[in-house]
Amino acid sequence: MTEKLYLDDLRVGRRLRSKSVTVSAQDIIRFARDSDPQYFHLDEEAAKDSMFGGLVASGWQTGALSIKLLIESADPPLAGPVIGVEAEIAWKLPVRAGDSLRVEAEVTRIVCPRRYADRGFVSMNVATYNQRDDVVLTQNVKILAFRDPGRIDAGSNQETPIPGSFPVD
Amino acid sequence: MTEKLYLDDLRVGRRLRSKSVTVSAQDIIRFARDSDPQYFHLDEEAAKDSMFGGLVASGWQTGALSIKLLIESADPPLAGPVIGVEAEIAWKLPVRAGDSLRVEAEVTRIVCPRRYADRGFVSMNVATYNQRDDVVLTQNVKILAFRDPGRIDAGSNQETPIPGSFPVD
Repeated sequence: MTEKLYLDDLRVGRRLRSKSVTVSAQDIIRFARDSDPQYFHLDEEAAKDSMFGGLVASGWQTGALSIKLLIESADPPLAGPVIGVEAEIAWKLPVRAGDSLRVEAEVTRIVCPRRYADRGFVSMNVATYNQRDDVVLTQNVKILAFRDPGRIDAGSNQETPIPGSFPVD
Repeated sequence: MTEKLYLDDLRVGRRLRSKSVTVSAQDIIRFARDSDPQYFHLDEEAAKDSMFGGLVASGWQTGALSIKLLIESADPPLAGPVIGVEAEIAWKLPVRAGDSLRVEAEVTRIVCPRRYADRGFVSMNVATYNQRDDVVLTQNVKILAFRDPGRIDAGSNQETPIPGSFPVD
């Protein structure tokens, strides 16, 4: 086991769990200013009159935070770079100032292109929970992940395959 | 026609086109610091040695920016609040510092819950283009959108339906 989870370490069925992080009103407002300036993400007072009854985080913020948690605080953390290819996202519940979020993920598929020795496409089901263990967000993501440079033999993925992965041309 | 596009104005097949906005290195780095701190989003020099060969925007930033463009600069702009329910996202090409992005969207489905007079679920295919008209991002989104308060009769959606919408309980 290395200090970080590289593609070499991932298998279908492998589960990752992150630590939790608390989202503050300041975090929510700072994100919203640049990227999603709707009033229920921006203004605590005005948000009280919204359908949410208070300040809530942008869905893009909780999506980004969820993947960041897997890279920074899963045990062991997922080695970067992690590059998003596709994602099916469902926002289930609002994330409010003071909520603590954590992430659980499970690898569902690994596909390694024969042309590249160093990378593969990893599909994961990702669920983001709040401090009451409610699911606030689910994602089926397909990411491009990379092998540990120290463990790549000369040659292609075909010669040094990731067990359980599908090779593709 | 009102100054903004409310649920009342949306029909299946309706197309929206945004203005374009240029994404700067500063925009990319500022987003990355909080939300996606990978080196190819953070550091112009270090990013030159990445698989992208230079600084690129976080996929979450381009996703958020695409919806923001529809709310702020479509002609007419989409009336807020716009609340994401689900999204199927595919990141097709990197977005680099200096790229100008614009969005085209088409309404594919409208579903109005009978219980609420003021809201409906709108599905849209959204494509984000760069200045070379390459598609950098596609999204099939389902959002919660709202009727123009000035045009809601007393009663439910069933009594004052959105033409072409599906009523659901």
